[in-house]
Amino acid sequence: MILAKVTGHVVATQKCDALRGSNLLLITALDDDQQTMPDRTWVAVDSVGAGMGDVVLAENYFALNKEQYKAMSVVAIVEKVFRDVRE
Amino acid sequence: MILAKVTGHVVATQKCDALRGSNLLLITALDDDQQTMPDRTWVAVDSVGAGMGDVVLAENYFALNKEQYKAMSVVAIVEKVFRDVRE
Amino acid sequence: MILAKVTGHVVATQKCDALRGSNLLLITALDDDQQTMPDRTWVAVDSVGAGMGDVVLAENYFALNKEQYKAMSVVAIVEKVFRDVRE
Amino acid sequence: MILAKVTGHVVATQKCDALRGSNLLLITALDDDQQTMPDRTWVAVDSVGAGMGDVVLAENYFALNKEQYKAMSVVAIVEKVFRDVRE
Amino acid sequence: MILAKVTGHVVATQKCDALRGSNLLLITALDDDQQTMPDRTWVAVDSVGAGMGDVVLAENYFALNKEQYKAMSVVAIVEKVFRDVRE
Repeated sequence: MILAKVTGHVVATQKCDALRGSNLLLITALDDDQQTMPDRTWVAVDSVGAGMGDVVLAENYFALNKEQYKAMSVVAIVEKVFRDVRE
Repeated sequence: MILAKVTGHVVATQKCDALRGSNLLLITALDDDQQTMPDRTWVAVDSVGAGMGDVVLAENYFALNKEQYKAMSVVAIVEKVFRDVRE
Repeated sequence: MILAKVTGHVVATQKCDALRGSNLLLITALDDDQQTMPDRTWVAVDSVGAGMGDVVLAENYFALNKEQYKAMSVVAIVEKVFRDVRE
Repeated sequence: MILAKVTGHVVATQKCDALRGSNLLLITALDDDQQTMPDRTWVAVDSVGAGMGDVVLAENYFALNKEQYKAMSVVAIVEKVFRDVRE
Repeated sequence: MILAKVTGHVVATQKCDALRGSNLLLITALDDDQQTMPDRTWVAVDSVGAGMGDVVLAENYFALNKEQYKAMSVVAIVEKVFRDVRE
């Protein structure tokens, strides 16, 4: 999973059946300083009610539920990131 | 999923059975300014009737439907992209 | 799927059962001008009878057939590529 | 699988059901000298009780158990790495 | 699949059940001149009895056998690589 920030959304009326009703979020990967990285943006299906500016966990290939395969998804909203590379 | 533009198509008569009847589109990934990126082009199966120049969503590995595994596919035609990295 | 050129082959007698009888091709990814890119070479199982110098479609993870999972495969021989990024 | 170091963890209360109860670790990929690489950090589910500073093996897509699909996971704690590129 | 050289191995006593009894090899991807590339090293499960210095085929996600999902694996030992990009 990657740490990313919700940076927008996408409107698409003509889409395959599996995406109907899905909220399509633009998410941009974060660097080590929690800043968005240039040209590292994906579109992910929201599954947790994430909003603009939220830091989220996104799974490139959502395989967490065998009965419910999905496209790239936002799977959690992140409250805090503890990081220390020196240890 | 990635944001991409349809930049061409591919003709291939000799192909594996699973690809027969498929429309094979050239899609090129878009950067943060919605411009096509150099050397970031893939071939994707069309599943939504996308045409030349359309901005589309493409899934690298199409796992949206358990009964219908497919190669990389165009899964939606994008009408609008709302993006704001400052938030 | 990626556009690639068949640039060689690999001989391997000691291999896992699933690869027995497979033709192992070296394929090199093509850039926007259809030239092979440096250090972008993979080994793919041939499933369409591709030969040296052929331009092919290769699927990184061959998921086209649910009953017949395979390693990276050449899935089509390309005759023509139509490409126009200006549109 | 990649060699990585546990460099932190993530707190996320709002998450999809499949992640409930999971320990979410920040892991940073190691270079050839076993140093953490900049901007190569992922979030992985811990399955072996790894702690801060541990060198671990992480599987990008955890497919080791057919009945138990999971997101990116830490699958082993590494005690020693023997490496010699000259041979 | 990628061409890689066995450049070491990893000792890990604390690991998930699916990895028990597995031989964990360090493999480093080869460039066009069959030289190991910097910072392109992975850990793969050996399934063919590969040894230090062997050139091998490694599958990033081993999907060759539906009943036997595995982590990244060494699936063949390479004897000869024939390569000609000029054709």
